[in-house]
Amino acid sequence: MIRRPPRSTPKPSSAASDVYKRQVLGFLDRHSVGRFSTVDPGGQPHIVPVCYGVEAETVYFSIDQKPKQSADRPLKRIRNLIHNPRVALIVDHYETDWTQLGWVMIQGQAELLTHGHEHTLAQHQLKNRYPQLQEMKIDALPVIAIRIKHIISWGDLTSG
Amino acid sequence: MIRRPPRSTPKPSSAASDVYKRQVLGFLDRHSVGRFSTVDPGGQPHIVPVCYGVEAETVYFSIDQKPKQSADRPLKRIRNLIHNPRVALIVDHYETDWTQLGWVMIQGQAELLTHGHEHTLAQHQLKNRYPQLQEMKIDALPVIAIRIKHIISWGDLTSG
Repeated sequence: MIRRPPRSTPKPSSAASDVYKRQVLGFLDRHSVGRFSTVDPGGQPHIVPVCYGVEAETVYFSIDQKPKQSADRPLKRIRNLIHNPRVALIVDHYETDWTQLGWVMIQGQAELLTHGHEHTLAQHQLKNRYPQLQEMKIDALPVIAIRIKHIISWGDLTSG
Repeated sequence: MIRRPPRSTPKPSSAASDVYKRQVLGFLDRHSVGRFSTVDPGGQPHIVPVCYGVEAETVYFSIDQKPKQSADRPLKRIRNLIHNPRVALIVDHYETDWTQLGWVMIQGQAELLTHGHEHTLAQHQLKNRYPQLQEMKIDALPVIAIRIKHIISWGDLTSG
């Protein structure tokens, strides 16, 4: 995808920063899939699509394997983030009309939540956002929480 | 996105492997956007959406900035891959019917092509695949070539 000059650069004033934050949150809310990248100990990135929810300064998504289910071989994304919690998530909007393109990339620290209040709230939020999850037994499954450190965006964040 | 058991595992026989390869290529061909991940020297992944083409064992996409245009500050993805050529690209298919989900992740070594026969062919192929590129002056712009080392897939590769 060809980059064009950013159209949604946050302004230094706090009012403009609030507008930008609302734009980013709206964009994340209107889209369903993010792509989540971790890095293995050899410096090799790994990516998977994820269905996510955003709350305050954190992005959440559920995974389908208990960490202890196969303790010697948990999912690659989990092994990676235990070794290196620096992760990235991108959500983008594509149309054949390239004036409508836009994306939001989040960089942050990943944390594995296996139980507790925040874990329960996250699972609840994800089920509300994705009716498909309501029939799946995800309650006991871990959640990855990305503590947002940095947001980079480009293009039309009002799209989608 | 919740993982289910893979439905498209390549079989050891070469006939089945050919079928799998055709499925993967078909999937990549039917989809328009990949998400490309690089890693910075601090181990922080970075992701951008890209419009790509596949030829033999290589994935190509064009970028919009000449490496020498701002030699002290080229694009983050370029700085990253010069430091660490290990990259990943994911192409996925999403539908609200989650039985139709599928994805292909490619891991490989990135190479920056700035001129020459392969660079010309790649730009030509990208213009053929994306009519939007035909009006953009991309001929002199660099191409990132991902030499495919590893393909991981999941779900329904006949979707899209």
